[in-house]
Amino acid sequence: MIKPRTPPGVMELLPRDQIAFQRMLDTIRQTFERFGFLPVETPVMELSEVLLTKSGGETERQVYFVQSTGALDRAAEGLPELALRFDLTVPLARYVAEHERELAFPFRRYQMQRVYRGERAQRGRFREFYQCDIDVIGKDELSPRFDAEIPAVIAAVFERLSIGEFTIQFNHRKLLRGYFEGLGIEGEAQLLVLRELDKLDKRGVDAVRETLAGEGFALASEVIDKLMAFSQVRSSSHADALAKLDALGSGTPLFEEGREALRGILSQLHALGVNESRYALNLSIARGLDYYTGVVYETTLDAYPQIGSICSGGRYDNLASHYSKSKLPGVGISIGLTRLFHQLREAGLVGTADSSVDVLMALLDDAGLDHALALSQRLRAAGLNVETQLEPRKLAKQMQYADKAGIRFVVMRGDDEAARGVVAVKDLRRGEQFEVVEAELAAALLVEREQLRGAAGTGS
Amino acid sequence: MIKPRTPPGVMELLPRDQIAFQRMLDTIRQTFERFGFLPVETPVMELSEVLLTKSGGETERQVYFVQSTGALDRAAEGLPELALRFDLTVPLARYVAEHERELAFPFRRYQMQRVYRGERAQRGRFREFYQCDIDVIGKDELSPRFDAEIPAVIAAVFERLSIGEFTIQFNHRKLLRGYFEGLGIEGEAQLLVLRELDKLDKRGVDAVRETLAGEGFALASEVIDKLMAFSQVRSSSHADALAKLDALGSGTPLFEEGREALRGILSQLHALGVNESRYALNLSIARGLDYYTGVVYETTLDAYPQIGSICSGGRYDNLASHYSKSKLPGVGISIGLTRLFHQLREAGLVGTADSSVDVLMALLDDAGLDHALALSQRLRAAGLNVETQLEPRKLAKQMQYADKAGIRFVVMRGDDEAARGVVAVKDLRRGEQFEVVEAELAAALLVEREQLRGAAGTGS
Repeated sequence: MIKPRTPPGVMELLPRDQIAFQRMLDTIRQTFERFGFLPVETPVMELSEVLLTKSGGETERQVYFVQSTGALDRAAEGLPELALRFDLTVPLARYVAEHERELAFPFRRYQMQRVYRGERAQRGRFREFYQCDIDVIGKDELSPRFDAEIPAVIAAVFERLSIGEFTIQFNHRKLLRGYFEGLGIEGEAQLLVLRELDKLDKRGVDAVRETLAGEGFALASEVIDKLMAFSQVRSSSHADALAKLDALGSGTPLFEEGREALRGILSQLHALGVNESRYALNLSIARGLDYYTGVVYETTLDAYPQIGSICSGGRYDNLASHYSKSKLPGVGISIGLTRLFHQLREAGLVGTADSSVDVLMALLDDAGLDHALALSQRLRAAGLNVETQLEPRKLAKQMQYADKAGIRFVVMRGDDEAARGVVAVKDLRRGEQFEVVEAELAAALLVEREQLRGAAGTGS
Repeated sequence: MIKPRTPPGVMELLPRDQIAFQRMLDTIRQTFERFGFLPVETPVMELSEVLLTKSGGETERQVYFVQSTGALDRAAEGLPELALRFDLTVPLARYVAEHERELAFPFRRYQMQRVYRGERAQRGRFREFYQCDIDVIGKDELSPRFDAEIPAVIAAVFERLSIGEFTIQFNHRKLLRGYFEGLGIEGEAQLLVLRELDKLDKRGVDAVRETLAGEGFALASEVIDKLMAFSQVRSSSHADALAKLDALGSGTPLFEEGREALRGILSQLHALGVNESRYALNLSIARGLDYYTGVVYETTLDAYPQIGSICSGGRYDNLASHYSKSKLPGVGISIGLTRLFHQLREAGLVGTADSSVDVLMALLDDAGLDHALALSQRLRAAGLNVETQLEPRKLAKQMQYADKAGIRFVVMRGDDEAARGVVAVKDLRRGEQFEVVEAELAAALLVEREQLRGAAGTGS
């Protein structure tokens, strides 16, 4: 007998939690599609040679290799041929380069699949997790206007997910780098300083100041003051964001370019009608990754800053330099849904969902089976999800089962109801029981379902 | 520069094909949920020790093993710790055994995920493919009434997929084995004869007759005659199925048990209102797998018998004997969707889908941007999928793009329209252009969309 268990570092859910998770996936997908993004799915395994083009990064060291039984039998020489994707960006680069001539640019794609990383096993760290990504890829160039559409999508996603107030914070690499230029910090040093500033939240002001003043950086105290003041800039409203940008004073051409870009994004978010409480300037945001070159985004839950960014991304100059000679600039963002779902559950922000089953068709005796089957089919044809009890059980047992399973309606039809052409409906959510003419049952239940959905504000 | 490409044996789709595929997945999922099945997702990788409990089977030889970089570095001793699932049945067995105390039985689950097999690479054979499975698992026992619900679900799935006429064919292992008993074929020999009969379609009557008469089997000619006649039984209607069962004459208790079970399934399918053209007795069906013990199903497309079974399954006695001491009988069925999609495309039965984008919001000049953004958002709020052109281009280019992308509506608003409070809509599907008051645009497009959806008969 083998102990049934999953490997460490994966999230496997019981059905009612899976329903909650699936609803989040559906909401995200639907919202991505609302904004005209197109679906892409790529194979979970890529050729190692294709996947591992960069050398050294943390994620590349965490890759999982895949070998068929046959390959294992042969002497292992060099790397296995196949490996599991560790993000959705490298597969996107490969996909766009491979299908370049068949795609229309700007290419707007969403992808929602699992990725794999050989992380150290610890609570809240996953070796298999969903990423939900959107990116817009241009050929040769990509209008900066896409930089403002991305946060509009993200605002719509998190509004519809109803997981509390959130803020999409953004900054611009050109503003940052231009500001550094103005302070005499040039070239490679900019990236190094950026990396330190990115650690402000984790290490605190004092530790970062010390590093910047110390060996390697040796920045003057007033330069560090300015860097600190700059990276403490946060806006509290749309008008405040514009005012804070104005208040930065004049700077190098690169700085002005970044400022203009941020103004453009703000103006477009306004035109898109995005609620101004949903976005803010945050000039401390740099994003560790070196390849962002323009706007960068992070999203936080207002009441749960400790969760950190739940959705991050930015603008990059060239997606697929390893695979294509074409210049493919892009902008995109990623939601790590498995980690987010885990954290929302820990914080009590998502609960176990009601069942995907709307109706339990009860069965009181064998004589009622044929009718129960036919009635179930009529409800299904009307769009209701119905589980039919196929064997008669005590009614109390059936009620108990429906209640535990999160099924809202139990439909019953005894001899008395049958004689009168009605059915009895127990609404376990409202704790009420009512009778309805059998021919009107489907319509009545659909109305009830819509009412509650409307009240929950989940939309269509 | 690395050539961007996928490994052999995977199916990667361009967006419009992905949309067609996704719609099939959605239809299948929605139909599974209509019948009260609950979602389960399991990790793609399982512990090798858990996954590979059986020794020897074909699929077990095709397993893919997974190793992290660290594990590769260490000397390879024994099997790698992790492996990719090769079906959804073994993970279901592990899942049910692991969560036995938390699940309600009968447990009705659906699972739609990719599985992995190190198949020989050839056209139409996939190393990564979707399976869409439903199973009902009982604890200790499972009512035979579930045997009839499964084909009702499958009938609903394929009706909604609209891929042509189909027939769910079924047989019963007890009928088969009882019939063999009656002919004096007992024990192990039954399985061996079953296996030969299962090859009738591929090898033809003569070759199978020869094998059964030859060494090993040495069956008498009249016994072979009876076996052949039996396995040629097909029903052409509900009444014919009952008549054909009656016409088989009396048999052993096991045979009668199987016949009663088939009559019960027929009666229940009738009560469920399943169209009688959708199901048929086919006494040649045995299913190669040894673990089916009751009803067995295969589904074929009437116009494409050469595709073979597109959805197969049956009843088994014990799902998880390797993981649990509980007896867990079940009944289920599986659709191999990647292969099916591939074959439907080859046969021209599924085409490239229209875009998931309903509306292209055209942009004629920069001055129109803010209005285009705001109008796009209003359409989205009404439930339409909208791509906004963010940079002005020649209108002909925008039309061309929408047409190529499969987007149905292009919304335009020039100075003239703006002055009159209307927008112009080009309906690329109908080849018409019309004007509508801007405030009524969303409602007008929704009506148009519903009309066409209704006409296509895809339902909600």
